[in-house]
Amino acid sequence: MKLLKQMCAIEAPSGNETAMTQFLLKYIKEQQKNWKVKPKVFAGNDLMDCIVLVFGKPRTALFAHIDSIGFTVRYNKQLVKIGGPRTVNGFKLIGEDSKGKIECTLKVDQAQQQLGYVYKREIDRGTMLTFKPDFRETKDHVQCCYMDNRLGVWNALKTAETLTDGIIVFSCWEEHGGGSVEFLARFIYEKFKVKQALISDITWITEGVTAGKGVAISLRDSGIPRRSYVNRIIAIAKKSKLPFQLEVEATGGSDGNALQRSPYPFDWCFVGAPEDFVHSPDEKVHKKDIASMVSMYKVLMKEL
Amino acid sequence: MKLLKQMCAIEAPSGNETAMTQFLLKYIKEQQKNWKVKPKVFAGNDLMDCIVLVFGKPRTALFAHIDSIGFTVRYNKQLVKIGGPRTVNGFKLIGEDSKGKIECTLKVDQAQQQLGYVYKREIDRGTMLTFKPDFRETKDHVQCCYMDNRLGVWNALKTAETLTDGIIVFSCWEEHGGGSVEFLARFIYEKFKVKQALISDITWITEGVTAGKGVAISLRDSGIPRRSYVNRIIAIAKKSKLPFQLEVEATGGSDGNALQRSPYPFDWCFVGAPEDFVHSPDEKVHKKDIASMVSMYKVLMKEL
Amino acid sequence: MKLLKQMCAIEAPSGNETAMTQFLLKYIKEQQKNWKVKPKVFAGNDLMDCIVLVFGKPRTALFAHIDSIGFTVRYNKQLVKIGGPRTVNGFKLIGEDSKGKIECTLKVDQAQQQLGYVYKREIDRGTMLTFKPDFRETKDHVQCCYMDNRLGVWNALKTAETLTDGIIVFSCWEEHGGGSVEFLARFIYEKFKVKQALISDITWITEGVTAGKGVAISLRDSGIPRRSYVNRIIAIAKKSKLPFQLEVEATGGSDGNALQRSPYPFDWCFVGAPEDFVHSPDEKVHKKDIASMVSMYKVLMKEL
Repeated sequence: MKLLKQMCAIEAPSGNETAMTQFLLKYIKEQQKNWKVKPKVFAGNDLMDCIVLVFGKPRTALFAHIDSIGFTVRYNKQLVKIGGPRTVNGFKLIGEDSKGKIECTLKVDQAQQQLGYVYKREIDRGTMLTFKPDFRETKDHVQCCYMDNRLGVWNALKTAETLTDGIIVFSCWEEHGGGSVEFLARFIYEKFKVKQALISDITWITEGVTAGKGVAISLRDSGIPRRSYVNRIIAIAKKSKLPFQLEVEATGGSDGNALQRSPYPFDWCFVGAPEDFVHSPDEKVHKKDIASMVSMYKVLMKEL
Repeated sequence: MKLLKQMCAIEAPSGNETAMTQFLLKYIKEQQKNWKVKPKVFAGNDLMDCIVLVFGKPRTALFAHIDSIGFTVRYNKQLVKIGGPRTVNGFKLIGEDSKGKIECTLKVDQAQQQLGYVYKREIDRGTMLTFKPDFRETKDHVQCCYMDNRLGVWNALKTAETLTDGIIVFSCWEEHGGGSVEFLARFIYEKFKVKQALISDITWITEGVTAGKGVAISLRDSGIPRRSYVNRIIAIAKKSKLPFQLEVEATGGSDGNALQRSPYPFDWCFVGAPEDFVHSPDEKVHKKDIASMVSMYKVLMKEL
Repeated sequence: MKLLKQMCAIEAPSGNETAMTQFLLKYIKEQQKNWKVKPKVFAGNDLMDCIVLVFGKPRTALFAHIDSIGFTVRYNKQLVKIGGPRTVNGFKLIGEDSKGKIECTLKVDQAQQQLGYVYKREIDRGTMLTFKPDFRETKDHVQCCYMDNRLGVWNALKTAETLTDGIIVFSCWEEHGGGSVEFLARFIYEKFKVKQALISDITWITEGVTAGKGVAISLRDSGIPRRSYVNRIIAIAKKSKLPFQLEVEATGGSDGNALQRSPYPFDWCFVGAPEDFVHSPDEKVHKKDIASMVSMYKVLMKEL
């Protein structure tokens, strides 16, 4: 899990994903010689900070967002959220401004419903802060900030190793209202006529989806994917004999919602491991669910 | 009203509209020989579960959504909403899962703000339930679940009978955040250069819009259509001498909102009969308003 | 500031912008002979009530919305909001219906959370009302309703005078959920390959952004623009030696949000003067900030 640990330590909040983009481009350049098929790599220019890998004759696109939640420094030692981070007094935050590297702590004023930071000096306006990574690994679990979605990205890179036909998309801004999937959908649909998507992302442990029981295939969250497509995925999953769990939620969302509202007729389905301590520095995932996720993507990218 | 009754009994919640799609394709195939102009029928593939009928040289597109509100089965006998159904203890719900046909009742826990069902057994995760139809007809009214929007669809089919130039669109997902009008707008605009739309849908009886006074022409709801277009529609309506009512609301929305935010320059206006007992099993519409709606669409599709 | 005063007096709430469109087309026709470069003017048809001016070989597009907040007349002397106007008992409103010109006052029923108007007669359903303009100018300030965004439009017209390469866009519906930037983005991107944008709009005076300290360059509001683009803008601003302030907000939005969610890969940044008494009849802006805004746009449109 060295690669996962490395990626969890990269600072890439929504809108400022370049560090992840650079890491991935370097990784892909170095590793693709070991992959079954060498993909065409699209990056830069009209893809902004996103990356699209095209393998063989693609039918399905895997979407993994590379951004994370975090905080922006406002005025008077205040913070505002990037996406929806959990906020607990004392959470350790890191970043960098014109005066150098920063390690500070989160301050939550419940009464005034205001977020701030504790630090020896004022931090530059607009500086983006992220959780300080503390990667923990046991026999059964990995735990760190940003499993959501470095694990989805990691799954994409594992999928890349043996993928013969398919597209892998690394998207931006997912945690903060989106803004890249819209043009990525256009690019993929117009250039490759691909309109089937899988969302490689991390979901929640709930009373219906538990740790260690396999990857979650989501029947819905705030968005409702087309049932006929989800049914095809479930049929493939059943046939595979791999462990999996069906998820049904009223809230939450993913790059799937942006695909659904795009002007292109994409089918999409969220397929991802569940985690505990969502959007905190302590996101925790069961290794069995990670294994199930990787295996399931291999099957799905082949069979769909 | 046999056709309307038939359609009110079809289960087609947002995301699972195939039963309505199949019904409509069959109906169109059988009936088009009796229509003034035989339309080109577009369905399947890039239209997903939507249908587009193109008559002659179109200038205006009528949009009628074929999906309905409903519920998705979650865990532990819980339900989550599809769209915004009214929720009252004891409402009868129907559906089907791997163990067979289901008829159960809605259970509303106000204290815990949770929805559930009462049934002899646990229903499969992800099963979609809809209101049990109870079609009632009197001299003046029709009443059933899903007047919204089977009546809008029925109006579209009536319009089809005499339409010479125009487009009829059967859209999906309207009740749950949309997701089809976006690509339908692209299809219609790019292929036929059509950018005028009418939303054939059902609205609310309020202190300003009453039963039996004619179809409602909406000046706005949560979305504000371009006034110059709405004014043209009102001018045509006045000239027609048909009864109609002007609606002004702050909330509510329709396929019009999705058209407005699409990357294509569509003008749109909501024109539909008002109903009582909105989003319940008892949606009730005055027959005069239905007659007015059908007549108004004939005029508008011709004059616009 | 005669031009600004003139424009503040034009009634053009979201969805009914034609009066502003006509004023601008006339102004452009008359004034362009005095401009350094004569632009191509795109208007009408697929641009609806928007206007696009193309100068030379454009790299960057300036967006200024021409609509304003206001109210729509409902039933029983009620009003519903267009956008998010401040609502205080007694605010003077103007409009026109079938019976003639109207000047009435706003009535706010806090208990019932309802808005209405006080007037000698019932106003036609759907009539749009706007604040009555009261333009005030002192040595340091200008004050009136609709500084947001007649001042952004005024800045665009000032920018036009010396612009050699660039696009100026006058957009609609910004105050009420958008609906034009989506197709404008498509038009600009497909026709001119331009994908850099500046949002010429007015922002808020806060504890971090004060009157008279220069134009605000926004690092974020509810939307988060790409940091690498904003950094380029800040670098140019610093080099220019012009006064400016950095803004960081959690809420608020602009045409930038619509650009971000469009299917085209636009970079955007909000650059605008701050005002006091936002969305009221008394929007107040410091003249130094106006001067700084105009100067900054000249530099940015050249250097970006």
